Amino acid sequence: MMLAIPKEEILERQAKLKKRLSENKIDCAILFSVTDIFYLTGFHFIPTERPMGLFIDPSGLTHMFVPALEHEHTELHAYVDRVHSYPEYPGIRHPMEYLQDALTEAQFVGKTVGIDADGYGSPMGYRGPRVSEILEATFVSLAGWVQEARFVKSANELELIKESLRWSHLAHRLLQDYSKPGVDAIEIESRASQEASLTMLKTLGQGFKAYGGYGNSAIAVFRGQVGPMSALPHAVTQSITLKKGDTLVTGADAAVFGYHSELERTMFVQEVSKEQEKYFDIMVEAQNVAFRTIRAGIPASEVEKEVQRHFKESGVTHLTRHHTGHALGLLNHEAPFFDLGDHTILQAGMVFSVEPGIYVEGLGGFRHSETILVTETGMEMLTYYPRDLDSLICG
Amino acid sequence: MMLAIPKEEILERQAKLKKRLSENKIDCAILFSVTDIFYLTGFHFIPTERPMGLFIDPSGLTHMFVPALEHEHTELHAYVDRVHSYPEYPGIRHPMEYLQDALTEAQFVGKTVGIDADGYGSPMGYRGPRVSEILEATFVSLAGWVQEARFVKSANELELIKESLRWSHLAHRLLQDYSKPGVDAIEIESRASQEASLTMLKTLGQGFKAYGGYGNSAIAVFRGQVGPMSALPHAVTQSITLKKGDTLVTGADAAVFGYHSELERTMFVQEVSKEQEKYFDIMVEAQNVAFRTIRAGIPASEVEKEVQRHFKESGVTHLTRHHTGHALGLLNHEAPFFDLGDHTILQAGMVFSVEPGIYVEGLGGFRHSETILVTETGMEMLTYYPRDLDSLICG
Repeated sequence: MMLAIPKEEILERQAKLKKRLSENKIDCAILFSVTDIFYLTGFHFIPTERPMGLFIDPSGLTHMFVPALEHEHTELHAYVDRVHSYPEYPGIRHPMEYLQDALTEAQFVGKTVGIDADGYGSPMGYRGPRVSEILEATFVSLAGWVQEARFVKSANELELIKESLRWSHLAHRLLQDYSKPGVDAIEIESRASQEASLTMLKTLGQGFKAYGGYGNSAIAVFRGQVGPMSALPHAVTQSITLKKGDTLVTGADAAVFGYHSELERTMFVQEVSKEQEKYFDIMVEAQNVAFRTIRAGIPASEVEKEVQRHFKESGVTHLTRHHTGHALGLLNHEAPFFDLGDHTILQAGMVFSVEPGIYVEGLGGFRHSETILVTETGMEMLTYYPRDLDSLICG
Repeated sequence: MMLAIPKEEILERQAKLKKRLSENKIDCAILFSVTDIFYLTGFHFIPTERPMGLFIDPSGLTHMFVPALEHEHTELHAYVDRVHSYPEYPGIRHPMEYLQDALTEAQFVGKTVGIDADGYGSPMGYRGPRVSEILEATFVSLAGWVQEARFVKSANELELIKESLRWSHLAHRLLQDYSKPGVDAIEIESRASQEASLTMLKTLGQGFKAYGGYGNSAIAVFRGQVGPMSALPHAVTQSITLKKGDTLVTGADAAVFGYHSELERTMFVQEVSKEQEKYFDIMVEAQNVAFRTIRAGIPASEVEKEVQRHFKESGVTHLTRHHTGHALGLLNHEAPFFDLGDHTILQAGMVFSVEPGIYVEGLGGFRHSETILVTETGMEMLTYYPRDLDSLICG
């Protein structure tokens, strides 16, 4: 099954960036962001101490700069005109000296050079000079440029996100099926994630590339949000046994050629109290408020404003802790945000999570997350897992 | 079981940093590195669009700066004097404006301020002003300071790394047991990782905190290095079936309160050719050369030099692709490196991987990785998985 961004689309992305550079009178560019480089070249790289970068020379040719270790791998998978490599980091000559040579040869000296950062950054023991220390040129920041290019998803990107949701759905279905009193949360997570991942890989076949950061390609987890602990919005996974009456807050995701999705549910073990039901209903209605508000042409902040109005009317403002959602795609969280301070105008083709949450100490957390697509007239729901209370009582 | 760094040791780490600041006439400090903040406070945080930081004020008090979402979590787990939080990112007021207030209140204005970076950095949609734009002060870079403090491991850190190796060992043992012709690599990885993780969690009990980035706390993987594909040093995981005669290059790790270890083996499915055996022997001897060389007081580069001399004598220099090893601990790769260009003097208490590799196109990769502890007189082997050929024929 072809689950990848085709070469033509990768080259189109490069062409758009080159056009924007030229419109801004920038002669050439150097990029270090691993995610942006994947977006622009199709080359997936796990960052370590060894620097890598992408540069576009004044004649418009694209070059990857990688450690020797990755040279063939880059030749094989990166849609670029040339691959340069250096022996090792730190090496007898520092990799940035090799980059200096490559940039000099590619006519960067004295030019106006766009950079997304002033050098490679990694916490994994990397130290090195800034680009501005190795190259005589005029520098212009491209911070945010590729991120913005990633805002609106193409038809191919949407297919990958929808494919991701298919396997998120399966992983979550299994998680729900296995959620019973007396069972350890981690055992449920592990079993659901493993089975969904293996089924995913067997279904999609040998050509499939997850390019995701997990041991499992598909996961469904509680992240420690079990019972009263579910009131911590981002609790950390730990061993904890499910009990009758527990509130559960879940999360599922699958990596498909680097693309992600989000599916989260509030579930209850066997029975629901009136109080749990009350907060559940307010939360589901908060999602509905967002769904009715979202459409191309309005600022992202508008969605948050409406959700907060609903929370205030419901008297639960003091129980809220975070904004309603975030864009997603190659990363699990991306800009823009459904947040009072984010006035980015929504465009058709943007993909967001919608996940207003309520957190009640001693009782639990209440949060569903849907992945949605902004359209000209409103939105399209991409998640299709049941949202109603009856469907979410497990065990 | 107590598998954590105790509070006193965390406070000692802070005291050492404060002492170094004072010796350098730096009044106060701001840190954004997530790993360094965990090291200095015991607070584990999964970075998103929402900035976080640690600051030490001129009176020596420690402060965490986090989103409201994480406030209680921080109060619970961070060994600091005060926790500050802001409502949300980007928010009506940007988080950096709240940081500005907190720094002003804590008497940072006009002081000499050490910073590890000029602001929070995250690819997850974060944008914001630099610290130097929100604070009138003299700035001094602390880049690398905490990393260097992390070079030499304490007795408690060594216990955590040894605990990690115990579960890496189990995961790897299962991986080897399940490696048979006709079975899919991902199925083997998934089964071994899941079983080892569940056993680990059931053994260590409810108080155990992995603080690791995996769905599974312990993993054993091929990362696609199966058969001729094993010649790509960092191949990406993919669905591939094991065949008789395949060379396999594996990797295992487990997260224990944020600490990692490294265990890698070259294995063969059922039979080994003379050629495979030849490269296997050269690689094992390269490790032995490193083991005989390592001791406190010599430069890290010395180890690489000896390994390269051995490779040259064996006529395989053209088949090597990377340096012999790296330090590790809270991250899988840390400085210093066994590399020709890294002249850091080895100290007793440093923990390294030793993993010289040979890569033969069409045949496979040959790399074991041991985790070792540098001692005054030599080294102590921390991994205890068999290294000899007979023990590594599987299926």
